[in-house]
Amino acid sequence: MSDITLSLKEVHQLATNCLLASGCDEENATAVAETIHAAERDGCSSHGLFRLPGYVASLKSGKVNGTAVPEIRRLSGSVIQANGNGGYAPLALQRSRSALIDAARGNGIAALVLVNVHHFAALWTEVEPVVKEGLVAMAFTTYKPAVVPAGASEALYGTNPMCFGWPRGDEPPLIFDQASSSMAKGEVMIAAREGQTVPSGTGIDADGNDTTDPGRILDGGALLPFGGYKGSNMAMMIELLVAGLSGQDFSFEAEKNDNNDGGPPVGGELMLAMDPARFGDSEHWQDHSESFINRLGGMDGSHLPGTRRHERREVIELEGVKIPETLHEQCRAFMS
Amino acid sequence: MSDITLSLKEVHQLATNCLLASGCDEENATAVAETIHAAERDGCSSHGLFRLPGYVASLKSGKVNGTAVPEIRRLSGSVIQANGNGGYAPLALQRSRSALIDAARGNGIAALVLVNVHHFAALWTEVEPVVKEGLVAMAFTTYKPAVVPAGASEALYGTNPMCFGWPRGDEPPLIFDQASSSMAKGEVMIAAREGQTVPSGTGIDADGNDTTDPGRILDGGALLPFGGYKGSNMAMMIELLVAGLSGQDFSFEAEKNDNNDGGPPVGGELMLAMDPARFGDSEHWQDHSESFINRLGGMDGSHLPGTRRHERREVIELEGVKIPETLHEQCRAFMS
Repeated sequence: MSDITLSLKEVHQLATNCLLASGCDEENATAVAETIHAAERDGCSSHGLFRLPGYVASLKSGKVNGTAVPEIRRLSGSVIQANGNGGYAPLALQRSRSALIDAARGNGIAALVLVNVHHFAALWTEVEPVVKEGLVAMAFTTYKPAVVPAGASEALYGTNPMCFGWPRGDEPPLIFDQASSSMAKGEVMIAAREGQTVPSGTGIDADGNDTTDPGRILDGGALLPFGGYKGSNMAMMIELLVAGLSGQDFSFEAEKNDNNDGGPPVGGELMLAMDPARFGDSEHWQDHSESFINRLGGMDGSHLPGTRRHERREVIELEGVKIPETLHEQCRAFMS
Repeated sequence: MSDITLSLKEVHQLATNCLLASGCDEENATAVAETIHAAERDGCSSHGLFRLPGYVASLKSGKVNGTAVPEIRRLSGSVIQANGNGGYAPLALQRSRSALIDAARGNGIAALVLVNVHHFAALWTEVEPVVKEGLVAMAFTTYKPAVVPAGASEALYGTNPMCFGWPRGDEPPLIFDQASSSMAKGEVMIAAREGQTVPSGTGIDADGNDTTDPGRILDGGALLPFGGYKGSNMAMMIELLVAGLSGQDFSFEAEKNDNNDGGPPVGGELMLAMDPARFGDSEHWQDHSESFINRLGGMDGSHLPGTRRHERREVIELEGVKIPETLHEQCRAFMS
């Protein structure tokens, strides 16, 4: 399969135009295009233009409202709710971010509950702007069942990512964003598309047997959680933190309620923000945490989460993004 | 090795008397004895009387102040700090719990930062009373380096447990409490004491090689994180949430500063509490989350975290606790 190279500006423009042509208004199209752009910029193709056909499909099916206007309200001193009113998550996040940051600075810790949004992006792109304001942030979301609880043989949990970010002053923030599954579903989809195998322990087929064929995992099979029962507990916790607190669908409910048009179901997200200056060590926390992070970064064989993303970012900003020609043609067709 | 059986009341009395004879005042002795009692009651011998020699050693060395009076203050609207003033964690936790609960009910989410405490217990015993008040709770703590970051060959992280609890009305709360290591160090110590092997992947020896001999892991070796780099990220996050926010020692600093008397180093702990009634679904969150939990509990092969603990509790409350006779003799000697 041959690739073509686009500049990041062209990626942004292509995504924006496809979304505008498919029913988004300017603000929603731009907000979604930002997240696609951020994923491609950091070399995460599984959350980049690869997702555009899904976005377009769920606009065309009428599942997602491309002109939704998010509503923000404060539920209690430290809890902000952003109601996406049936639109994609990025605009709701953009509009509620400053309220979350203000509440965290004011009270030390605050939570943002997203409801009635369609979430299809990588969490680190959402957490990074909060961490760049000097706050510690965590984010969690659910999806549709794809992961088997430890010991069981049927999917119940979404791939349920969690993201954690720690501010580092002038250095790029320390951010990890990891699925509760042994592998992100997007990576399994990429492997299937490219005809590659996946490691044993990644998932099971429809009969409950371990398989290295990504197609068999996606076709009626399921992913395994990372790290056995401990990773399974993380996936469970994320279901409760997201759907249990917000009142939005658990992954198993989202499956029943979704129209399976290829785009994301409606659901929730939880983001927490903490101001490290309000936890009792306001003068030294930055130097103190840097001593730990530098020690970790200096160990042979270890690496700091997010480092490779920032290294790729520097290259991609110069050299542009390689995407499969077939995907590029598919995207261009959405505009005609 | 022969065992003897003690009633839970006898466990509590034995622990209290040993601590009183070793320099604790009544309030500190009772608070620590409660956590030892709770561990034995739930069949978790690695955090029960087995830890008493360590508690006694660090009272006798003067590292821990057995008559410490904790101080509680509100650092910001949603952040409570409990300064243990060099005592064990249980009394500081007991005294600050209601402030955490009130702040969570008032603002929706709140944090409790423990500083200047010696922590030697299981987190679930600390989280359970908060969850029984109808709140969601999480807790994190560090220790001394015992776990190798993914890819490295030297320990940097403590076994760094995290605990999550979800309230279930009249049902026992759903609580998991898990180390970031592939196995809790207490379990490795028990295996070493009993001459058993541990699974491959549990840890490395002093030369960096995988070993199934728990003695070689404890003697200059190190534990591996659970779930590869994802579990390693959890251990890193816990270092930052605990030491980074509170200003207390990271695990690598605790090792340098501790006198290695067999008891716990001085350090911090972070507990978060959330009131599910303040997150936007005040009327339905309980029934909604029960529908998910019952679905998980009903799946063939799965089990709800904490269920086995509550089953053991029912048996042990009737039948008492079996402990090695040698340990019983060692404890009794502390009182003479």
